[in-house]
Amino acid sequence: MPQELVAVDLATIQGRVSGELDAVVDELRRMLLADSRMINEVNEHLLRMRGKLFRPTLLILSAQATGVTTPQDVTLAAVVELIHLATLVHDDSVDHSVLRRGQPTVNAMFSHQIAVIMGDYIYSRAIIELVELDDPIPLRVMSRVTNEMTVGEMQELKAYDALDYSEDDYDALIRSKTASLMSGACDIGARRADTKVRDHLRRFGLLLGCAFQITDDVLDYTQSQSVTGKPSGQDLREHKITLPLIAARSRMSAAELERVEHLMAEPEPSDDLIADVIATVRHVGGVELAREKALRLSLQAESELDGVPDGHACQGLRDCLSHAVDRRS
Amino acid sequence: MPQELVAVDLATIQGRVSGELDAVVDELRRMLLADSRMINEVNEHLLRMRGKLFRPTLLILSAQATGVTTPQDVTLAAVVELIHLATLVHDDSVDHSVLRRGQPTVNAMFSHQIAVIMGDYIYSRAIIELVELDDPIPLRVMSRVTNEMTVGEMQELKAYDALDYSEDDYDALIRSKTASLMSGACDIGARRADTKVRDHLRRFGLLLGCAFQITDDVLDYTQSQSVTGKPSGQDLREHKITLPLIAARSRMSAAELERVEHLMAEPEPSDDLIADVIATVRHVGGVELAREKALRLSLQAESELDGVPDGHACQGLRDCLSHAVDRRS
Repeated sequence: MPQELVAVDLATIQGRVSGELDAVVDELRRMLLADSRMINEVNEHLLRMRGKLFRPTLLILSAQATGVTTPQDVTLAAVVELIHLATLVHDDSVDHSVLRRGQPTVNAMFSHQIAVIMGDYIYSRAIIELVELDDPIPLRVMSRVTNEMTVGEMQELKAYDALDYSEDDYDALIRSKTASLMSGACDIGARRADTKVRDHLRRFGLLLGCAFQITDDVLDYTQSQSVTGKPSGQDLREHKITLPLIAARSRMSAAELERVEHLMAEPEPSDDLIADVIATVRHVGGVELAREKALRLSLQAESELDGVPDGHACQGLRDCLSHAVDRRS
Repeated sequence: MPQELVAVDLATIQGRVSGELDAVVDELRRMLLADSRMINEVNEHLLRMRGKLFRPTLLILSAQATGVTTPQDVTLAAVVELIHLATLVHDDSVDHSVLRRGQPTVNAMFSHQIAVIMGDYIYSRAIIELVELDDPIPLRVMSRVTNEMTVGEMQELKAYDALDYSEDDYDALIRSKTASLMSGACDIGARRADTKVRDHLRRFGLLLGCAFQITDDVLDYTQSQSVTGKPSGQDLREHKITLPLIAARSRMSAAELERVEHLMAEPEPSDDLIADVIATVRHVGGVELAREKALRLSLQAESELDGVPDGHACQGLRDCLSHAVDRRS
């Protein structure tokens, strides 16, 4: 964490925009409501398991930081969360995930079919809301972002050679699958500001998003699962190659690299094999290198805020950045 | 078929707009192209198996019928086909279909995961194209239509009581899943015309779309599969209740109705059971009643064309209607 940043709880940051976030939840509820009992049943489940509203928070704070807020900010923040929700529902279905945020996923609780249709329903609802706002900027930003996300998801699906998947490949992936939407949230929040400030906030969101995803990927190597007490290693289990492993590779012995290849060739790698590779990656410093990159990116992100008017909202964005790289879950 | 209508081959109708349809295919190719080898591989497959471009034909002819054509018509026609394609890719994945138009589906040829992401990719590409045209009308129409289609797909998924699923339920379903997009194509084609003409064409598309879907559902009861020589009965196999069965129910004996319930309760109904129910539905006149409704709707559709300037394009739309209710596949 950059020295200027002091770890702040997300709840504290959000306390300062709690009125707006409450309104975002109301908007989400309104937008999701359908003339279909089945869709409304899934909606209730989705609203119960709703996340931390990190992207709406970025959008609201970005708007406030520019000094130009409008009543549409709340609607746009809800749309960004809706798009995030649509991608989660499809991602879980594609990955056959059964749990998200401690709750059953839509594919697990209802069915795979319902998850596919629900994702389409949510995304098309988001587009309707964007169209009705009658402002070309958010439409242009969000249509590009969602398309970029699908390209990223397709890349992620590809079976890579574990020893060949480069840091550039990884950078491109986290940019499209995570950072593009966070960047889009900041960009849209700043849509009424002058181009320079808007560009700073867009780049801030992009760098923050990359740091956020790297932190996520590091947690998979460090964070204990509540039950086992061991790092979850879920990414390795799914053969996902993330920065800690990529950074560790050049420091690994031939025998250690062979273990990695062995794991990647195993359709269902054993817990021991996963624990073994995690231990090696940590031992040679892969986790440390990944953390350093997240910090480097967050310093770059912070310097983008120099071009944004200082004040409470700008400080809130700085706190969001701190949350992104310092969180424990 | 209404007496005024003479069966015309779709190829003949399309011959009159072949220049535009060639341009639509070029546009489709341009729109689908991605910076991803995997996506482009799926694109090639989709372009090879591309359909009859019925919806683009409706859009182009509607524009011509109003007397106001623009270079954007071709792009919009490609967008409508793109949206149709996205729904097919997801539908096949939801239904686990392995063949479409004699070619393997995306889920069968690649994977279920790729089909989900590909559908999202195609739909978000369509939105990008709509946004770039900078015209609110097609965006408004298409966002509503795609959302309506997802609601329809969700309804279709629901397990219905075979003896309880009403004609109203069926009407609502075919409206949202099939007619809404055809209506949208005509509506967008007529976007520069005066409101009255545009309304006529929108309603024409809706009625045509309903007649088209009923004809499709009748074909499942009448059309022989090339291999077996028997009606395909695919809908009954998938427990889909369509108009021929709904119309037949009130004329069926208690024993015959019991057979229907038995089929619906059977996870994998036998060919004999399916053939038996098909024979009953045909025998009591269910197919005839469904055909009559398709003809009634097509007469209503034709009368909407009275409010559209007469000429070659209007005649082309009449021919499309004839194709919709008279086709054999």
